[in-house]
Amino acid sequence: MKTAVIGSGTWGMALARLLFDNGHSVKVWSAIESEIKELREKRTHKNLPGIIFDEGIVFEDDLEKAMESADICVLSVPSIFTRATAKKMSPFYKKNQIIVNVAKGIEESTLEILSDQISDEIKNADVAVLSGPSHAEEVVRLLPTTCVAGAKDMETAKLIQSVFMSPVFRVYTSTDMLGIELGGSLKNVIALAAGISDGLGYGDNAKAALITRGIVEISRLGTAMGANIETFYGLSGIGDLIVTCASKHSRNRKAGMLMGQGKTMDEAMKEVAMVVEGVYSAKAAKALASKYNICMPIVDEVNAVLFENKDPKQAVDALMLRDKIAEKIGI
Amino acid sequence: MKTAVIGSGTWGMALARLLFDNGHSVKVWSAIESEIKELREKRTHKNLPGIIFDEGIVFEDDLEKAMESADICVLSVPSIFTRATAKKMSPFYKKNQIIVNVAKGIEESTLEILSDQISDEIKNADVAVLSGPSHAEEVVRLLPTTCVAGAKDMETAKLIQSVFMSPVFRVYTSTDMLGIELGGSLKNVIALAAGISDGLGYGDNAKAALITRGIVEISRLGTAMGANIETFYGLSGIGDLIVTCASKHSRNRKAGMLMGQGKTMDEAMKEVAMVVEGVYSAKAAKALASKYNICMPIVDEVNAVLFENKDPKQAVDALMLRDKIAEKIGI
Repeated sequence: MKTAVIGSGTWGMALARLLFDNGHSVKVWSAIESEIKELREKRTHKNLPGIIFDEGIVFEDDLEKAMESADICVLSVPSIFTRATAKKMSPFYKKNQIIVNVAKGIEESTLEILSDQISDEIKNADVAVLSGPSHAEEVVRLLPTTCVAGAKDMETAKLIQSVFMSPVFRVYTSTDMLGIELGGSLKNVIALAAGISDGLGYGDNAKAALITRGIVEISRLGTAMGANIETFYGLSGIGDLIVTCASKHSRNRKAGMLMGQGKTMDEAMKEVAMVVEGVYSAKAAKALASKYNICMPIVDEVNAVLFENKDPKQAVDALMLRDKIAEKIGI
Repeated sequence: MKTAVIGSGTWGMALARLLFDNGHSVKVWSAIESEIKELREKRTHKNLPGIIFDEGIVFEDDLEKAMESADICVLSVPSIFTRATAKKMSPFYKKNQIIVNVAKGIEESTLEILSDQISDEIKNADVAVLSGPSHAEEVVRLLPTTCVAGAKDMETAKLIQSVFMSPVFRVYTSTDMLGIELGGSLKNVIALAAGISDGLGYGDNAKAALITRGIVEISRLGTAMGANIETFYGLSGIGDLIVTCASKHSRNRKAGMLMGQGKTMDEAMKEVAMVVEGVYSAKAAKALASKYNICMPIVDEVNAVLFENKDPKQAVDALMLRDKIAEKIGI
């Protein structure tokens, strides 16, 4: 297969390596010319120390050339740039090309998931997604990883599966794109809460509670929006949430931790120095909860900490002190 | 309320402190007289450094005296001693006493859960359970924790809830005792697998996959046995599994890690030096899977590593290399 990777961040580069190792041709494009130049010349990425990218991977600063013969375009730009990048791609899109979105996020102004934004900008595009518990830093080092390939029809999902599957990268299939994308973006809000809990000095018990109750409220919203509850209890839902909340690699968790230790949102964002998707997703999640009339206590408390200067300790304690209730998962 | 805690391990002592702080009277009993003597005299527990137990907590080496006026008996001995301890308790059991089992395990010879073993030994006993992501080391330090109180009827579950609930210990209710107990015991097998993965040097992606797919196979078995799928996606299921697989406190994970690093099962058990419940539960899980004709690939591989000297790397790799399949959660 011929593939193009649009966006040369850590996740794009990890997937470029995986695709190349799987025997596909790979062209990587980025809007940042200096990044492409460095990758082309040094074959290294500043955020993936120790990894040398094969000479066979082509680095391209011309989007048209990157896309022209590609069967599959992997779209791996940060979610806030997804719509604009899709718009740029639109004139070069050819029928039968599949666009695989691998970013995670919800647009604040439209409350749309990324695949819908791509479909808005590229008419009749065949859009699929790949998501799951998959830190780039581990995938690029060939550590065992699982993901879900999602598409509107199972045939496309199976095609994506066969393109990405390798002895160290196991891919499952699904047709619930909405559920996959909602799980992937909303988990970042729960990761902020988990980070806050860690920053306050709370332990593994509190974090496990936040993860377990977090996926309950995500699935409550998601099913109201039309997604399948199964998806939220799969790799792209709880699986991705677990890895994000546990991992030292997660920037959302790290930002939360800094806030739990007393930093403001702005200070935390500055210190993490990468895009903290959860801050945008928190607002979007709150708006969706209100639109669909869903109770999302963790999302509410995270928003209060982020945007209303609520004391993080009071926010976590508020979650612990709610009324006595039965455990309802909503399955 | 008057309470008795039967078993003075770390979990029993954490709950004794919680009950005492909640205003209940607490008597703690242990079969090991020297342990009771030390607790009575020094008010400290060797595995809970830094904690001083209040003078108001009574330590008792006479089981009859410990139980005689108790409204609630918390049974917190290691699962392999549950049946024998219940048998000892039987002559002193009075009508209307509630026995709350807080241990986790399945008996290898009968494949019975602990509450059934207790009911075998104490006829007409009112048995309930308390379970969830709750490392004793954190509960005794008053770090925020959540659990589920389970009983055959909601009225009893609510009573247990109100006895244990505190500002730092949030209790939900459920009537699915089978689901709660199966989740609590079988998670230890998955924790061994997660530990093996860690020991092999694999990362957070692999561990999140094992947790996510692990609860799928546990719930597949559990629902075949009559439990509710919701329970496995709640605090006593996935919640407890997450904390066990992530935590530095978990002895099951630690034993697995040592095996992943090349130690034999016996060497690992010796080094952990506490009961590794997962080793017993692994056999029981395999027997139950066979009895109910359920596919449990992670359980199979853990058994192969434990009892057939299978190379841990080959076992984990076998899980990654299975056929391409759709993601089925079975909800």
